[in-house]
Amino acid sequence: MYRTHSNGELRIENVGQTVTLAGWVQKSRDKGFMIWVDLRDRYGITQLIFDEERTPKEMVNRAKTLGREFVIQVKGEVIERVSKNSNMPTGDVEILVKELTILNKSIVPPFTIEDQTDGGDELRMKYRYLDIRRNPVKNNLMFRHKVAMETRKYLSDEGFIEVETPYLIKSTPEGARDFVVPSRMNEGQFYALPQSPQTFKQLLMVGGMDKYFQIVKCFRDEDLRADRQPEFTQIDCEMAFVEQEDILNTFEGLTRHLLKEVNGVEVDKFPRMSFDEAMRRYGNDKPDIRFGMEFGELNEVAKHKDFGVFNNAELVVGIAVPEANSYTRKEIDKLIDWVKRPQVGALGMVYVRCNEDGTYKSSVDKFYDQNDLANWATITGAKPGDLICLLSGETDKVRAQLSALRMEMATRLGLRKSNVFAPLWVVDFPLLEWDEETKRYHAMHHPFTSPKPQDIALLDTDPGKVRANAYDLVLNGNEIGGGSIRIHDKATQALMFNHLGFTPEKAKEQFGFLMNAFEFGAPPHGGIAFGLDRLVAILGGQETIRDFIAFPKNNSGRDVMIDAPSAIDDEQLKELNLKIDL
Amino acid sequence: MYRTHSNGELRIENVGQTVTLAGWVQKSRDKGFMIWVDLRDRYGITQLIFDEERTPKEMVNRAKTLGREFVIQVKGEVIERVSKNSNMPTGDVEILVKELTILNKSIVPPFTIEDQTDGGDELRMKYRYLDIRRNPVKNNLMFRHKVAMETRKYLSDEGFIEVETPYLIKSTPEGARDFVVPSRMNEGQFYALPQSPQTFKQLLMVGGMDKYFQIVKCFRDEDLRADRQPEFTQIDCEMAFVEQEDILNTFEGLTRHLLKEVNGVEVDKFPRMSFDEAMRRYGNDKPDIRFGMEFGELNEVAKHKDFGVFNNAELVVGIAVPEANSYTRKEIDKLIDWVKRPQVGALGMVYVRCNEDGTYKSSVDKFYDQNDLANWATITGAKPGDLICLLSGETDKVRAQLSALRMEMATRLGLRKSNVFAPLWVVDFPLLEWDEETKRYHAMHHPFTSPKPQDIALLDTDPGKVRANAYDLVLNGNEIGGGSIRIHDKATQALMFNHLGFTPEKAKEQFGFLMNAFEFGAPPHGGIAFGLDRLVAILGGQETIRDFIAFPKNNSGRDVMIDAPSAIDDEQLKELNLKIDL
Repeated sequence: MYRTHSNGELRIENVGQTVTLAGWVQKSRDKGFMIWVDLRDRYGITQLIFDEERTPKEMVNRAKTLGREFVIQVKGEVIERVSKNSNMPTGDVEILVKELTILNKSIVPPFTIEDQTDGGDELRMKYRYLDIRRNPVKNNLMFRHKVAMETRKYLSDEGFIEVETPYLIKSTPEGARDFVVPSRMNEGQFYALPQSPQTFKQLLMVGGMDKYFQIVKCFRDEDLRADRQPEFTQIDCEMAFVEQEDILNTFEGLTRHLLKEVNGVEVDKFPRMSFDEAMRRYGNDKPDIRFGMEFGELNEVAKHKDFGVFNNAELVVGIAVPEANSYTRKEIDKLIDWVKRPQVGALGMVYVRCNEDGTYKSSVDKFYDQNDLANWATITGAKPGDLICLLSGETDKVRAQLSALRMEMATRLGLRKSNVFAPLWVVDFPLLEWDEETKRYHAMHHPFTSPKPQDIALLDTDPGKVRANAYDLVLNGNEIGGGSIRIHDKATQALMFNHLGFTPEKAKEQFGFLMNAFEFGAPPHGGIAFGLDRLVAILGGQETIRDFIAFPKNNSGRDVMIDAPSAIDDEQLKELNLKIDL
Repeated sequence: MYRTHSNGELRIENVGQTVTLAGWVQKSRDKGFMIWVDLRDRYGITQLIFDEERTPKEMVNRAKTLGREFVIQVKGEVIERVSKNSNMPTGDVEILVKELTILNKSIVPPFTIEDQTDGGDELRMKYRYLDIRRNPVKNNLMFRHKVAMETRKYLSDEGFIEVETPYLIKSTPEGARDFVVPSRMNEGQFYALPQSPQTFKQLLMVGGMDKYFQIVKCFRDEDLRADRQPEFTQIDCEMAFVEQEDILNTFEGLTRHLLKEVNGVEVDKFPRMSFDEAMRRYGNDKPDIRFGMEFGELNEVAKHKDFGVFNNAELVVGIAVPEANSYTRKEIDKLIDWVKRPQVGALGMVYVRCNEDGTYKSSVDKFYDQNDLANWATITGAKPGDLICLLSGETDKVRAQLSALRMEMATRLGLRKSNVFAPLWVVDFPLLEWDEETKRYHAMHHPFTSPKPQDIALLDTDPGKVRANAYDLVLNGNEIGGGSIRIHDKATQALMFNHLGFTPEKAKEQFGFLMNAFEFGAPPHGGIAFGLDRLVAILGGQETIRDFIAFPKNNSGRDVMIDAPSAIDDEQLKELNLKIDL
């Protein structure tokens, strides 16, 4: 071992001991007769002192050559510091160096290895191994490890078995695009990388495994939006002989465990809300309930006057923004510009100032009187000092727009506190959603989700109204997990494939193995999958997943550090019986 | 929840309770007035009783329709059994059924769901979800989970951080073949699936992660030998600021922990042996030391007579097979045939019977006297009653042949006990090995392994003699782990690439990112990787890894259950800019 102690370990009790330390030179200060060096490793920083009077001259001279990020080993005595630094755990002591060995030199790093670095995103990605030396990234990776370990401990203690499912599976053109892997031994054929282990975990339930989980990489060849990765990690879970209630309770337990062990936060029983209610109250199926500003639907109290914009709208809906009456006219105009941006897409915004004296002043005073405005205030829950913001239009669109405004205002008001955790179950999702592009229904969750038995009859008459035994776990406005009770009989599964536009032949070709399996005594079962990258980021109080991934890819799916993907040899292509055809 | 208890849970103390159980019908016996059903789940079997006098008639009639593997739910009272079955944990009780619900029917399974099944390998693989219902497979998967959990707990407690490295990386034509993944977004370019996270774990050390591990899938597109899989799982580990001794101690600790927690076996400090010694004493770099039969090298006492076969041989070497003097002449002839099989490849075998009276009788009495044979007995450690088997020829070949014979004899003699664990470190592996086919040296471990400093000079003069800081952990004759201290400076790494036949351009193209990283203060580091599939099989006292993998592939790399790999749509190919060229 190159060291007797780590750089985060020594305390005043160690004074007098001879120790050997190793690590990186964080910085050095040369006062001529004395040199101080901050020595860093994963565990912390320890101050070294080279003193002309007490350190051999050769070592002092060598210390003068040290540059940032040199890797060194020192032997010396732990001494008490004259000026202690109470900000660092090792701040009471320093090492009076007797021997210095340079283990490896470093050229000047392209950015500073400090919490606040001068490196831009691209540079940090190219030299990710240097970026990982920085506390913010290093701590995130350690945090991720802790979340994964606690997840495994909890589920294992609850009787779940982690089973590894295969990575080289079969391509299924449903849903997102698969990454495919040409097979050399099976000419002209391809494996696919799993988008999720969905069918395998269901087969494990058919196989009697009873409680399964896996922390597993999944792959999706999608055009990458910001903060999406082509490979991502799921906490994938499935249980047999359960109903929705059992799944919710079990994974509420897991989430509560994580919040307690990882964040030290105790959370009460998670509230539940139907999809319909979430859309009505928050315009969003993953509402952030750390704060209020619930939607007030105003059709009944806003469509009785001569204001055509509202009268022609499917939905008039508003939120009361706390204490935003202080906004100047100019600020409000900027807010209106904000909702009219193409990313939000509103056509305009009506507002009502709620004055401290109980009166109201609105942008539609021409059409509505104080009594009308008072009604709006009651329904949106506005208090004196608030600003009511109203949008109107087609229900789905206007809800999405107002939801975006609600989140924006919460951010501006500092209501999205990263150390507050507000989980929520959203249940009773629709089974199907209409796709304008393909002009047919798609499975909202996936084709294996079971419809609510009482809604099955609607499949033929009003498919969009059929609700599923499907649920999402939402945390602070992010979907961190989602799942469903599955279909477990062949007839219902065939019906489902039929409604999703599969011919019986196509269904058999792609999912025949699953439908066959259902003939041999498949138990009722259901499950859930958590997106680990997102979960870790949110528990860590951050928004972007990239800093919780050791070696992320950029928005073009490239790893700029290793420069992948890249061209491969012709010989390799030939062995795979492939030709590139650009 | 479909049940109040599992089928492995109820005991005599539960008598009188009303319970609900669910599971699969293992078997049913219909005595007309009474029907017994064995109900099975992951946790065990509970006997159900349907009694015409005490169970509602409708339920009895329904019970008569039950077939094997039907999934049912029953409600009833726990009663004491008249004839108890002490072989099963629930054998004191049975359930007097009041309500029976058939949750799902089953057609007749293609093989019996019993410990000894009538299903052949192929059928079991096609219906793997049924195979997993059988105790032997189910227990293996649970055992694997336990090994993985204990590994994670141990390493995490030792300060290791599990970091997920990417699956979509860069193709490197060194070593085995990569599986490649065409990139749609980067036209004509390919990712590769990792054969191991080797370079990434080294970059994590450069990044200061200090102690890393990961249980991770790896991929190798090789022609599959028996008991190899195209995707396999590694326990991948790396440490910084360590020397070989530190790695050996740390992972000896892990292995000891697993043996204790998983097998209940306490093992003393693991013996160590150099590669040279292992080859000399056992003819094998992964010797099974659960038993003796060490090699005795006989050149000095066997080449002094007129026996040309020995005189012309590079090596004459023998083992004393305990108590095998009892072999008849016919049996010995069959053994000689065995060593002459092409799989072993010996040209013949000389033997010496060690009689109980201290005399010897050999197949070469024409050339050697009692004194010679007594010398051979001394060197091979033969006792009266043993049979000495001698092979001769080219050193490398004859060692491999005698090693095969040693293992065969141990198997015949029952010396390879699956509940005995004999770990061993083999150290000081050669850095390079000569490849006859390509007529050049290859890295025996991989190109990142550091040569022993004292041997570096030999690189130019006698490359085959250079020893590496490389080690294998051997358990019961299997390599379960292997690793090395790595090169951590750019100059040595460049030297190594040069000796392995890389041009500087090629080295830079493929591993430039790693050599660059070495310029920014790379710490000394090293690591090890365990093959989890093999490790689990050996700890589980079995030889084949396939039954420890939930969904294995066959020898053609096919998953016969889901029928993968398979053809993909032309549209998919077009998007990937590929053409199949058979």
